[in-house]
Amino acid sequence: MTEDPRDTAAGVDDDDADARHAAKMRKKKAARDRMMADKSGEKGLLIVHTGPGKGKSSAAFGMVLRCLGHGMPVGVVQFIKGAMDTAERTVLERYPDLVTIRAMGEGFTWETQDRARDVAAAERAWGLAADMLADPKFAMVVLDELNVVLRYGYLSPDTVLEAIVARPPLQHVVVTGRNAGDAMIEAADLVTEMKLVKHPFRSGVKGQKGVEF
Amino acid sequence: MTEDPRDTAAGVDDDDADARHAAKMRKKKAARDRMMADKSGEKGLLIVHTGPGKGKSSAAFGMVLRCLGHGMPVGVVQFIKGAMDTAERTVLERYPDLVTIRAMGEGFTWETQDRARDVAAAERAWGLAADMLADPKFAMVVLDELNVVLRYGYLSPDTVLEAIVARPPLQHVVVTGRNAGDAMIEAADLVTEMKLVKHPFRSGVKGQKGVEF
Repeated sequence: MTEDPRDTAAGVDDDDADARHAAKMRKKKAARDRMMADKSGEKGLLIVHTGPGKGKSSAAFGMVLRCLGHGMPVGVVQFIKGAMDTAERTVLERYPDLVTIRAMGEGFTWETQDRARDVAAAERAWGLAADMLADPKFAMVVLDELNVVLRYGYLSPDTVLEAIVARPPLQHVVVTGRNAGDAMIEAADLVTEMKLVKHPFRSGVKGQKGVEF
Repeated sequence: MTEDPRDTAAGVDDDDADARHAAKMRKKKAARDRMMADKSGEKGLLIVHTGPGKGKSSAAFGMVLRCLGHGMPVGVVQFIKGAMDTAERTVLERYPDLVTIRAMGEGFTWETQDRARDVAAAERAWGLAADMLADPKFAMVVLDELNVVLRYGYLSPDTVLEAIVARPPLQHVVVTGRNAGDAMIEAADLVTEMKLVKHPFRSGVKGQKGVEF
């Protein structure tokens, strides 16, 4: 006996409808919480650092440092550079009570040359990020290089933005990476574009310790 | 008996000539050292973060964090915000072996309304900075908001640039603040302009802990 495919389809539709309703309610609640928070002048900001210039991730890590000084717990997910930038991690990992730092750990995506593997890694990293965005314990969540992963189409922008919008109302989120999408910029409270005015690599100088890595 | 003013003038001229010669030789030596350093691919960079956007100082502090991770000693002079930004200091002061952080400590200049006092404070801060720029112990020197002090005419741009150019050849210098002067940009290896795309204060949200301070 074969299953009627329409039954299965209907079942999936029901699940989808439930998920959509739950997401809608979550959004509504978040919007209301946010409005209430606004009234007290306290508000979790969505901050985007984009553009082709330097300093997008460094500025995010500077804010992490500031939060540390205030004793505010911070979550960090590094979507791209994971395996490369160990220097910041070395310091931040000395504050395990305050900083949770996770990295995709597959190096630069354009080095793997395996799209399926990149997508799987991006999704694993996103899972960690989504958990942080749902946890009011974190006063700030840094999603380092998320824009790049979105630009490559490794994650659904709708899924990402929905989780960001539905986050606890006082939680700050910092999203870095060039080519921030229009929807991300639209949703953001604060957007800074880092513009490259002058770059030493153009004149044959190699990356320097403490500056580039 | 009155002193012949020409004698005094001549004496001053001699002193000036000596000082100019010493400065010229120092520059020459620095240029040669720098050229030699270039050949090995190692080079202290002059990095400028300017523009009206956010993240200029945060990106500098992110680089300090990176240096800390590498065990590289860093000097920081805060030219403007001294009294305001205590959160980063709280963390950095936990690394007294690696980080020397000094602040002008007079608050924002536009709050003092006393130009003579501002100039004196800027000169004291510059004295600390000049010592760091002469000390090869420091792998990186951050001159936070120096551009603003220069823009106000509180310090001589020539004096400042001369000390920066004559620094140890492997020392990185990070200069922040809006309105970087042309000479500073000309001298720099790496210039990033932080451009404001969207700012929450425009929609009546106050500065948030961990983000703005």
